[in-house]
Amino acid sequence: MKLLRYGPVGAERPAILDAEGNMRDLSSVVPDINGDALSPESLAKIAKVDVSSLPVVQGTPRVGSAIARPGKFLCVGLNYADHARETGKEPPAEPVLFSKATTALCGPYDDVEIPRGSDRTDWEIELGIVIGSRAKYVDEADALSHVAGYALVNDVSERRFQSERGGQWIKGKSHDTFGPVGPWMVTKDEFDDIQNIDLWLDVDGDRRQTGNTKTMIFGVAHLVHYISQFMTLEAGDIIATGTPPGVGLGMKPPTFLRAGQVVTLGASGLGEQRQLMVQA
Amino acid sequence: MKLLRYGPVGAERPAILDAEGNMRDLSSVVPDINGDALSPESLAKIAKVDVSSLPVVQGTPRVGSAIARPGKFLCVGLNYADHARETGKEPPAEPVLFSKATTALCGPYDDVEIPRGSDRTDWEIELGIVIGSRAKYVDEADALSHVAGYALVNDVSERRFQSERGGQWIKGKSHDTFGPVGPWMVTKDEFDDIQNIDLWLDVDGDRRQTGNTKTMIFGVAHLVHYISQFMTLEAGDIIATGTPPGVGLGMKPPTFLRAGQVVTLGASGLGEQRQLMVQA
Repeated sequence: MKLLRYGPVGAERPAILDAEGNMRDLSSVVPDINGDALSPESLAKIAKVDVSSLPVVQGTPRVGSAIARPGKFLCVGLNYADHARETGKEPPAEPVLFSKATTALCGPYDDVEIPRGSDRTDWEIELGIVIGSRAKYVDEADALSHVAGYALVNDVSERRFQSERGGQWIKGKSHDTFGPVGPWMVTKDEFDDIQNIDLWLDVDGDRRQTGNTKTMIFGVAHLVHYISQFMTLEAGDIIATGTPPGVGLGMKPPTFLRAGQVVTLGASGLGEQRQLMVQA
Repeated sequence: MKLLRYGPVGAERPAILDAEGNMRDLSSVVPDINGDALSPESLAKIAKVDVSSLPVVQGTPRVGSAIARPGKFLCVGLNYADHARETGKEPPAEPVLFSKATTALCGPYDDVEIPRGSDRTDWEIELGIVIGSRAKYVDEADALSHVAGYALVNDVSERRFQSERGGQWIKGKSHDTFGPVGPWMVTKDEFDDIQNIDLWLDVDGDRRQTGNTKTMIFGVAHLVHYISQFMTLEAGDIIATGTPPGVGLGMKPPTFLRAGQVVTLGASGLGEQRQLMVQA
């Protein structure tokens, strides 16, 4: 199933894609695409709905983040060997973990703000894990049972704020609109192998990133297991799993986003995003 | 006003302290002590209530976190010159910012878990700022208008997870129960000078930390202004403002918490906390 949210910021409604790709309003079944809606029981209930009986969403409303604001918006750093190299760092011995402020969450086609004083706003296409049930101290073998599905994430980053303003990455990861998620939350049953997903990202139509989740250093199951040793994951939490090579920081010379540029990105089975850069 | 929450985990009810120090149930006025309840309009409404007309809370219920789970649980690092020295670091040129997972939030008297595999669980008494209204790119002169009040925070930390497990502090700051907040959220009008608050913390009755917020490197107004340049603060968000000297990491030799030990801490005007350490 492909679940999504449509409508104005802060007033999104839940929807599901039908077989023809039409949005059908899902608010008669769940109030929102949030942690409660993503539990195994709730997903089973949605799976039983006759989607063709739901009202088709009229017009072309804004698409919001595929997930309502979660408790946690976590990210894994340097999780592709090639990307670690382009940043000049050794591949990590265990997952690098940081967080974005959940206020950074936005829709897949929303404008992305370049913060005031920024000259190093960068892109990072990532596979996002969406948690479906509480996970604390879970084994790697059980980890996928706590996953509801996946969504495309652009982990927008301000490199100077991230690395030159006092030591912790959260400063460069948390500006409003630095977290487009969607267009869809795709349930895990739609993927034969989540460790074989193609990812691509363009800036103004020029290909910048290409990758595949098979070159992740730490795969999805290991990440859920690993993070659950340090904190409790809950339904609706998002984990962005790191980016493949091709970020602006790694270009020669390093190249960053300017207002007016357009970033497009996509992944097999997860849809596409498009963001216009604007000045905050 | 001193606002608080009582009742079982996840089912807390709002309360207010009366002049005699009794808890009065506030659920006829606000549903919870959360961002909505902390807006200037809501606090003005609560201030007009005849507290003596509210029902006295019966028995001795658990006290929960003074604030319902917020969108952000931010922390400032190395914000007392003496504490920066004891960790062997230079005082920072600008605030060091990191976050705790919001699942770490707990009540002021709840047991605190020592994580599995931990041998360096440490204490950090801190003044917590509670945000009352949305703050994005606010000037330092306007910053305090976005503050609802203050609460005592124990920023419990696992030093090995924080510093030796892959580079970002969030891993050592986010275990369940690593964020006792309360017993009260005290509205800002109760403080003549928030930069003159005494802080103390004992382990098994031995004094470990003493400090005063006047030795903060970056004060409350600057912190709210500063953080709002990087992310949008919202009502209910908590900012723990750093710890004075005396953490276990700074002792010679470094000394950490064991199951069965009791941590007590307090601050002028902000009440006291008490936590029994237990093994996760």
